[in-house]
Amino acid sequence: MATQGRVITCKAAVAWEPSKPLTIEDVQVAPPQAGEVRVKILYTALCHTDAYTWSGQDPEGLFPCILGHEAAGVVESVGEGVTEVQPGDHVIPCYQAECRECKFCKSGKTNLCGKVRSATGVGVMLSDRKSRFSINGKPIYHFMGTSTFSQYTVVHDVSVAKIDPKAPLEKVCLLGCGVPTGLGAVWNTAKVEPGSNVAIFGLGTIGLAVAEGAKAAGASRIIGIDLNSKKFDIAKNFGVTEFINPKDHEKPIQQVIVDLTDGGVDYSFECIGNVSVMRSALECCHKGWGTSIIVGVAGSGQEISTRPFQLVTGRVWKGTAFGGFKSRSQVPMLVDKYMKKEIKIDEYITHKLTLAEINQAFDLLHEGGCLRCVLAVDV
Amino acid sequence: MATQGRVITCKAAVAWEPSKPLTIEDVQVAPPQAGEVRVKILYTALCHTDAYTWSGQDPEGLFPCILGHEAAGVVESVGEGVTEVQPGDHVIPCYQAECRECKFCKSGKTNLCGKVRSATGVGVMLSDRKSRFSINGKPIYHFMGTSTFSQYTVVHDVSVAKIDPKAPLEKVCLLGCGVPTGLGAVWNTAKVEPGSNVAIFGLGTIGLAVAEGAKAAGASRIIGIDLNSKKFDIAKNFGVTEFINPKDHEKPIQQVIVDLTDGGVDYSFECIGNVSVMRSALECCHKGWGTSIIVGVAGSGQEISTRPFQLVTGRVWKGTAFGGFKSRSQVPMLVDKYMKKEIKIDEYITHKLTLAEINQAFDLLHEGGCLRCVLAVDV
Repeated sequence: MATQGRVITCKAAVAWEPSKPLTIEDVQVAPPQAGEVRVKILYTALCHTDAYTWSGQDPEGLFPCILGHEAAGVVESVGEGVTEVQPGDHVIPCYQAECRECKFCKSGKTNLCGKVRSATGVGVMLSDRKSRFSINGKPIYHFMGTSTFSQYTVVHDVSVAKIDPKAPLEKVCLLGCGVPTGLGAVWNTAKVEPGSNVAIFGLGTIGLAVAEGAKAAGASRIIGIDLNSKKFDIAKNFGVTEFINPKDHEKPIQQVIVDLTDGGVDYSFECIGNVSVMRSALECCHKGWGTSIIVGVAGSGQEISTRPFQLVTGRVWKGTAFGGFKSRSQVPMLVDKYMKKEIKIDEYITHKLTLAEINQAFDLLHEGGCLRCVLAVDV
Repeated sequence: MATQGRVITCKAAVAWEPSKPLTIEDVQVAPPQAGEVRVKILYTALCHTDAYTWSGQDPEGLFPCILGHEAAGVVESVGEGVTEVQPGDHVIPCYQAECRECKFCKSGKTNLCGKVRSATGVGVMLSDRKSRFSINGKPIYHFMGTSTFSQYTVVHDVSVAKIDPKAPLEKVCLLGCGVPTGLGAVWNTAKVEPGSNVAIFGLGTIGLAVAEGAKAAGASRIIGIDLNSKKFDIAKNFGVTEFINPKDHEKPIQQVIVDLTDGGVDYSFECIGNVSVMRSALECCHKGWGTSIIVGVAGSGQEISTRPFQLVTGRVWKGTAFGGFKSRSQVPMLVDKYMKKEIKIDEYITHKLTLAEINQAFDLLHEGGCLRCVLAVDV
């Protein structure tokens, strides 16, 4: 391509300071170095983690930066030594890398590849610990190793999943974060069995994906818990069979659920990021085997607590990141499942805007009616 | 037998009030009712749970009562409908029942049988919710459904394991609690694999049994942590390969262990009952898969806490009761393992006294040099 090996100047939404509206800027994107891939982003969605870092609450947050981590695009060029993707490949950037070589990847026990974390955690690329983004020579930090709020981004080759070119990128961009996180929490982390009772705290995109995953796993009761009763109608479409609004009860929500289920649920999922709800989610589990999965991301410094008796009497407390999916290996499989209509995506997309309208999209994220807003980036 | 169907008057150590020395009394033990078994206790050991209830800290503790739950004896008589044991059978009373009929037993997921818990938790028998112990007509509460600090006790038939009559009762009495709890925490709850790194917090009987279980499971590094460095010599005999005294380090113990093990251990076990140590035990686990098992019993009302990030990044927090062993089914198997020299028992017995010397035995329990003190009951 004509752009290969050259700096590309394109549009990107830059977060200059916490909580200040993003601005669309002309950004210089350097060519990919060894082991790197430059991707033309076509569609990106927003996720609560973007909003969390943008808000300034994330102690790892660095500014100025280019946020965004749930997207899809086409490879523009690759750096030296990159063999698994080539220009023209359709890809999903993956904030959770998969190198297949580190002790994490080789363990067979986790998807938390450690190869590039030391760089992506501080907004740079691994090889030279520098950013590939700049504006008039001033570096702009990467975010989560993805930075998809840009027409072009540079990612590590271990952080990009090659997908079926027939898949619609404006849909499968959602497989970069929320939907896999929910499905995988059920399938990989909890391993829900047919006939199980499940409680889901928080019916946003991740909670609904948990419901979808639980339904697919054959759960018999799927109890959705949310403070917004309006969410029940849509939640039904994703598999939720019963709805509880804690506001409708005087008893603690865990007691309400224990009473409703003859002792508690087999599996619970916290999809909010509220440490108090995490405790309720654990304590609504059945003695002897109930397992609670923390999916939501809590604010910095916050702690969970419970009486150890809860665990001694057989409850299990776990968490999940990206649903336990190995990104490069399994995101393409999820794309295939979507193409075969085995998993939903379209139903999560409630809004469509353009990159230029990104601040409006952030506003939407905090409204009850918005699940995912997909931005067309190549405007 | 001549005593069948009659009240037996025998010696028992009675706890009249919290923290007051036990006194040896003549106690009337009523005949077993339907579904009950009267057992002549020959040997009983002391465990920290006896001391905990005796101290008055246990909110479920009821006085006056007959403590004791780690013992062995011979069936004296059985009540109506009891088919699985008969007079003369050698048995181990089991504080954790196994009815094989309740939802817990049928689940295949837990050993926490629920059948008699509502009665044993309040010091009575299930059928009439009364005690079988009395002194001159005044009822004395049962304890944990076992009350083995007595020459005769009455237990539910679901709470008694029939064992090989050739097994020495003065040894296998230890299979009533501590040793199975430690072995089972490793084998049933954690499922430690060969080559694993293990950290054990607290090197009393349970901690040493965890070490023994971990060694048998093929763990390659078994790190013992205790504030008393004198325990290392004996701990070596149970499989501990490295010893850490937190007093020797300025850094938090979890950080010491993470540094020593290139990221943390695969499995950790808290065998003390200290909620602060429970946190350290979780946080010394390896990101991605490290699993921490709470074995110790914390004081009433105390809580564990950590940052949810610890779980979201792959650590798992669990607990165990009686090591996950199904008591009636599996205690006899452990007896057989002892007879085949596959598990230790003798090495845990550091002191031998008689029931009349029980207060001295309680004193010993708090000394570093005592693991288990076995009391001859039929004196």
